[in-house]
Amino acid sequence: MAYFDAASAAPLHPVARQALLASLDEGWADPARLYREGRRARLLLDAAREAAAEAVGCRADELVFTPSGTRAVHSGVAGALAGRRRVGRHLIVSAVEHSSVLHAAEELERDGGTVTRVPVDRAGAVDAGVFAAALGDGTALACLQSANHEVGTEQPVTEAAEACRAAGVPLLVDAAQSLGWGKVPGGWSLLTASAHKWGGPSGVGLLVVRKGVRFAPQGAADERESGRAPGFENLPAIVAAAASLRAVRAEAAQEAARLRELTERIRARVPGLVPDVEVVGDPVRRLPGIVTFSCLYVDGEALLHELDRAGFSVSSGSSCTSSTLTPSHVLKAMGVLTEGNVRVSLPPGTPGEDVERFLEVLPGAVAAVRERLGAPAAAESAPETGADLVVDTLGRRCPIPVIELAKVIGDVPVGGTVRVLSDDEAARLDIPAWCEMRGQEYVGEEPAERGTAFLVRRSG
Amino acid sequence: MAYFDAASAAPLHPVARQALLASLDEGWADPARLYREGRRARLLLDAAREAAAEAVGCRADELVFTPSGTRAVHSGVAGALAGRRRVGRHLIVSAVEHSSVLHAAEELERDGGTVTRVPVDRAGAVDAGVFAAALGDGTALACLQSANHEVGTEQPVTEAAEACRAAGVPLLVDAAQSLGWGKVPGGWSLLTASAHKWGGPSGVGLLVVRKGVRFAPQGAADERESGRAPGFENLPAIVAAAASLRAVRAEAAQEAARLRELTERIRARVPGLVPDVEVVGDPVRRLPGIVTFSCLYVDGEALLHELDRAGFSVSSGSSCTSSTLTPSHVLKAMGVLTEGNVRVSLPPGTPGEDVERFLEVLPGAVAAVRERLGAPAAAESAPETGADLVVDTLGRRCPIPVIELAKVIGDVPVGGTVRVLSDDEAARLDIPAWCEMRGQEYVGEEPAERGTAFLVRRSG
Repeated sequence: MAYFDAASAAPLHPVARQALLASLDEGWADPARLYREGRRARLLLDAAREAAAEAVGCRADELVFTPSGTRAVHSGVAGALAGRRRVGRHLIVSAVEHSSVLHAAEELERDGGTVTRVPVDRAGAVDAGVFAAALGDGTALACLQSANHEVGTEQPVTEAAEACRAAGVPLLVDAAQSLGWGKVPGGWSLLTASAHKWGGPSGVGLLVVRKGVRFAPQGAADERESGRAPGFENLPAIVAAAASLRAVRAEAAQEAARLRELTERIRARVPGLVPDVEVVGDPVRRLPGIVTFSCLYVDGEALLHELDRAGFSVSSGSSCTSSTLTPSHVLKAMGVLTEGNVRVSLPPGTPGEDVERFLEVLPGAVAAVRERLGAPAAAESAPETGADLVVDTLGRRCPIPVIELAKVIGDVPVGGTVRVLSDDEAARLDIPAWCEMRGQEYVGEEPAERGTAFLVRRSG
Repeated sequence: MAYFDAASAAPLHPVARQALLASLDEGWADPARLYREGRRARLLLDAAREAAAEAVGCRADELVFTPSGTRAVHSGVAGALAGRRRVGRHLIVSAVEHSSVLHAAEELERDGGTVTRVPVDRAGAVDAGVFAAALGDGTALACLQSANHEVGTEQPVTEAAEACRAAGVPLLVDAAQSLGWGKVPGGWSLLTASAHKWGGPSGVGLLVVRKGVRFAPQGAADERESGRAPGFENLPAIVAAAASLRAVRAEAAQEAARLRELTERIRARVPGLVPDVEVVGDPVRRLPGIVTFSCLYVDGEALLHELDRAGFSVSSGSSCTSSTLTPSHVLKAMGVLTEGNVRVSLPPGTPGEDVERFLEVLPGAVAAVRERLGAPAAAESAPETGADLVVDTLGRRCPIPVIELAKVIGDVPVGGTVRVLSDDEAARLDIPAWCEMRGQEYVGEEPAERGTAFLVRRSG
């Protein structure tokens, strides 16, 4: 058994477990009360806040605990927007933010505001200049993650913060994926994080609002957590979150180097072990523990199940693994292949042998899925036959359209075209991505009688 | 040491602790994931939802878990109001709801809606007829607690639900104080509760929305918890909450009888043990574990500290124990004495000896505070001297104005008046309450050069 999905939720750190148990006995009372149990709870809460603030690099009175990272983002975005409502109602986000940021942005749009989604390059990073160029007179807030949760790519937060500062616009940094590894540098104004991403318990998020940042909490409130996070504090979990953040930080430098070496092995060796693979995300400016790749002609859900049977828990941004049957917005924004997508995110402490075993198992798992789907063999080359071809994949889902395209591309002469009819959302992303990987020319798409026709010209 | 503040937060039930520990190992993964850890988490979440729904008396798909009771109320009220926005923007609440309900009501008012706060009688109960009479054409929602959190009085929820049903208005019942004791009967539409009130962990609330009730979740959302409670589920706490709810229910009938006898002892004996005490709340229609009384001429905070030193943790609705220095809105709405207020709320399992010891300690604690404040001895009767008197207590706080009034009332002849000058908010409540307790005539108040003049006529 190897759990390789730390970017979703990390298993509880031993220090978190210990702190949680201890504070179940000491920290269940209401910290607002005057009697001994309440005073003890208040001391624990204050100490946890101090510890978390120190790890973030902020003042204790700038930090509140929320019930989750998602709630921290929702409250942080809404409060910052409301605080600068008079300035304007324009929000900037990167196209690859966590869904909680994007949901908050959609909420603003429903309410009449406007949102700029800054595109990313093929590695998943925004260009700091493009980000800065989006800042305008009516911009109330900008949001940029410290590092991406699906591909690990780090964002140019320091440069973005400088541009925001120059424009007088607050920058909210979603540090959910990186806070366990270190402080977020630079002059950000708001910061959010989630304890269960660093090995703390679920039920705890952090919202930091720097002194001087205009902030107007939205929705019903109470007197707890500076009026920014209503409801009885989940104290045992808060104590465990703060204690485990200190603990993972103490181990961070050493563990980062170790995990980086392990993910580098996967990055380097998967393309040799598995034919037709695209490794995505920035190879250098990235988180230590995340590596993501997509396998042509593979159904992501089927591959996840193959790997699960072999004892590996990973996640996927492929459309077939999503409840909405749309591919990951991150892979989509990057313009990379979305089919057969696998994200490996190693929890601290992952032994090297587990990674080696994964590399042993992966080729067979991919091959098994491809065989079931009737995918073309790698570098298969059929004799050249007719002229232009039409392939009807209507009603069939990812990765079938790409598989059918690959099967027939050799049947048209160089310069000839294949017209793929498809009504699958993923085809729009994966056919161009396949062309790029295969050196074929993607001509474009046009509406068909049913679905969409995707045109590919054979280049070689 | 005896903790008598279960209505704020109950100590963790042993079953909750056990379930929490077990699910720290089994339930930390994302229940939305397809691999084994995710599937196990999903099974735990589904089982917890089934168990909680059975205890509430609803379908599992009507119940979602929120991060606290407060969040359940905020989301429930906002979603129900938005769902019926076309009907109108009028909300009905009782005047003695939990602050989370009142905060949600204030939020509606800030947003242009209207709120009717239904008054209560001296025992703290709304009249079902008065509640029903508040229902109008534009009423979007009505809220009524199952039982009051400060005085234990039960509300006529069944009758209110009938009236609401007849008017086609949904009723939200805040069952935070009562759910551990039993199901809320009657045809309510929405229900909220909080796990740490029944001995579950903090970090878990319940929001139930009956099928067919119009409901539009407000704010940014995600795909979790039917779109009604965004953010990663706090699964170990949810499992512990559901398990402990079943456990406390199994013990509820027996424990309710036992605690009712213990609180009845306090209700019956305190007036004999401590002079000048008013026991408040309904003597019969009440929660088993709560008993509340107010002591004339006593500073609530000082009394809490006296009791804390003697080993008893209780809470108080007196103004001096509140961060805003205003008396409890519940005591205020009831029109009872707010000074020297003590709420005893016994956790299940409280031994009878602890209550006996409390009754031994209480008279001395009250006497010590009174002595320090220079309060008049009980039934003190000074010789009748002059005519009308003015007592200046400007700048002095509860309970001093009442103490000064009591000291001089015997100095005016029957039919003569005492004019108490005060700028303390609590005096407005406590001077009339004192008159009622003492059989003196409260004439009324009028603005004075500074503060307010409260007029009392000596009746005997």
